[in-house]
Amino acid sequence: MYKLIELQTGVCSAQGFFADGISAGLKANSAKDMAFIYSKKECEIASVFTTNKMTAAPIRHFRAKGEFKTNFVLINAKNANAMTGKAGVSDINTILKTLPTNIINPVMSSTGVIGVRLPQEKIIAGAKLFDLSKKEPNAAASAIMTTDSFSKQKAFRVELEDGSSFSIGAMAKGAGMINPAMATMLCFITTDAKVTKEEMQEILDEVTLTTFNAASVDGDTSTNDTVMLLSNGLSDVYDRDAFKVALERIMLFLAREMVRDGEGATKLVTYRVTGAKDDREAEIVAKALSNSLLVKTALYGEDPNWGRIASTVGASGVEADEERLSISFNDLCVYNKGRLLFDETMEEEASQIMKLDAFSISCDLGLGSGEFTSFGCDLGYEYVKINADYRT
Amino acid sequence: MYKLIELQTGVCSAQGFFADGISAGLKANSAKDMAFIYSKKECEIASVFTTNKMTAAPIRHFRAKGEFKTNFVLINAKNANAMTGKAGVSDINTILKTLPTNIINPVMSSTGVIGVRLPQEKIIAGAKLFDLSKKEPNAAASAIMTTDSFSKQKAFRVELEDGSSFSIGAMAKGAGMINPAMATMLCFITTDAKVTKEEMQEILDEVTLTTFNAASVDGDTSTNDTVMLLSNGLSDVYDRDAFKVALERIMLFLAREMVRDGEGATKLVTYRVTGAKDDREAEIVAKALSNSLLVKTALYGEDPNWGRIASTVGASGVEADEERLSISFNDLCVYNKGRLLFDETMEEEASQIMKLDAFSISCDLGLGSGEFTSFGCDLGYEYVKINADYRT
Repeated sequence: MYKLIELQTGVCSAQGFFADGISAGLKANSAKDMAFIYSKKECEIASVFTTNKMTAAPIRHFRAKGEFKTNFVLINAKNANAMTGKAGVSDINTILKTLPTNIINPVMSSTGVIGVRLPQEKIIAGAKLFDLSKKEPNAAASAIMTTDSFSKQKAFRVELEDGSSFSIGAMAKGAGMINPAMATMLCFITTDAKVTKEEMQEILDEVTLTTFNAASVDGDTSTNDTVMLLSNGLSDVYDRDAFKVALERIMLFLAREMVRDGEGATKLVTYRVTGAKDDREAEIVAKALSNSLLVKTALYGEDPNWGRIASTVGASGVEADEERLSISFNDLCVYNKGRLLFDETMEEEASQIMKLDAFSISCDLGLGSGEFTSFGCDLGYEYVKINADYRT
Repeated sequence: MYKLIELQTGVCSAQGFFADGISAGLKANSAKDMAFIYSKKECEIASVFTTNKMTAAPIRHFRAKGEFKTNFVLINAKNANAMTGKAGVSDINTILKTLPTNIINPVMSSTGVIGVRLPQEKIIAGAKLFDLSKKEPNAAASAIMTTDSFSKQKAFRVELEDGSSFSIGAMAKGAGMINPAMATMLCFITTDAKVTKEEMQEILDEVTLTTFNAASVDGDTSTNDTVMLLSNGLSDVYDRDAFKVALERIMLFLAREMVRDGEGATKLVTYRVTGAKDDREAEIVAKALSNSLLVKTALYGEDPNWGRIASTVGASGVEADEERLSISFNDLCVYNKGRLLFDETMEEEASQIMKLDAFSISCDLGLGSGEFTSFGCDLGYEYVKINADYRT
């Protein structure tokens, strides 16, 4: 048995972790644009990075280090340091060399425009403003934002039956397209749980599949996507089940917050796909639904257009049959195994559901026991405005 | 040697073909909404249908007939007869039984809203208005339109060296989302060439890959997509090379017209991908580019955001390397194998290219000899308006 107690202290929740955000002049109006996470003890790291082949320089820099522990992550917004080749990695080395000597094996994480070299001098000057004794998780979470409209944090203290405890805290920035170049997500998670690197990586991989990898704003995979989990072990406490549940709660919350804050999004929709031939086919359908322009624009129009749902299921490439398919909006079944149920009364009921800020669309394929749940948002004028008109 | 002479007579260009469009009261304001194609001699048919598993009733009806020749195609707009199960097919049989006795093995093709039974009485009454001696290709091409803003036709007379000739003519409706349910394309091609069914199908399959299957408005595959090629052999003339070239010219023209007339589209962009590991990988990249929301919104904003192109190439899943990739807008190379060329002067030049109604974006992956060309359009406010606000 264990208990999760929610904390409001983000990435500074676990013992020995410090963080802050400052302005280095990368964003306009002196907004915070650089953050650090520092641990007084070196950390094991688990990580998940983008599958994009045009991997950004900070990820290539991280990977080139091989096996290592660190006590410091430097994060900047406004510039992704992507498509910058070897120079991008050498810029990181130059910047990290200027950090104080008590910093061990520092790594960097960047988000912003693609194809422009980092403004080295500004970042080096910014890093000199860092005070490693600060615990300002809100400032750090704000500094890493780009087109996000609110910052995203979540933390728990995990109390075990014997009264011992450890903590996990996280901050993330959303899957909006960055100013102006991509759909980037960054997430940093800190913990003082006494977990091994291998087990932490295994759990992180598993939880990522049903949280960040189930969330879609626009179906694009950026050059910089990063989830980093840092453990300094300072609590000397660990319980695998409790750790996994807490991590899952945190990552699921952040994934949903990212979608809810998707560019121009007004609705958070949960797509529950069941009855597929297997889980993999359910995942394909769930992701096809959350990525479909047909579906996204119907959501924005608050139009219970179940035909677009059916057509998207059919177009996804998996085994499907209209005589076995059922479709529901929340608990309202609008199409049932070949029976056209939709009349004016039902349309009115379904329209009311679609006016909600959050609701679910369920598709039962009626073929097997495969299931998957994904998260998506609508696509409206604001999305086009943010992504087409950013220069004006 | 052969010569292609362009004709303005659409699907009535080949000998023995008749067509017209009439109003059956399916569209508002007495707009034309039903069309027929009639041949005085029975035709061999080649066809390509949607890969959507929720196949519409007219396609299931067609397939259930097995091997057959026909002299009549009945087409209606406003109702797709999709997700209508067995009733959808039986509705077609009821309608087709009311046609005159000189009509042999008639088939039907539908486009419009999903999940609503056909208005049988209106369609039966409409079919009684058909005059099979009419050659009104423009009326037929208008009747099959839904959200298209112009009708799409193309025809050639093919003259061989010995002075003999045959003709091919076509009409199509565009890949906009239909009122309101899907991205549907229909294309009907008629010819009097003396071609066998097998050879006609083989050529149609091959040409479809680089024309209709290379065109994207929104990346959705509808329940009704249909390309039908009817040959009555009345010219007694045939030449494989000339036939294939003429068919390719017609289908390429119509595919590009569909994209140009994509809902809300203001630009037609040709994506030329070269240097991929193989043709299949080039195709994946070309289609990823024409479907990417990141790229589409940048096009709409007339923003030469090459970073989004690079990121989309990297995210497509194929082998790619930033040190080998080159990207050009028309003939202007903006990124060359790891070299950041983009400065203010180049940005100004690239912006001018993006203001054009039509231009190309080329990506050379620098890895092999695989290549593919696709066609796409931009995505702006009008697309959202058409697909979200259609009820208002």
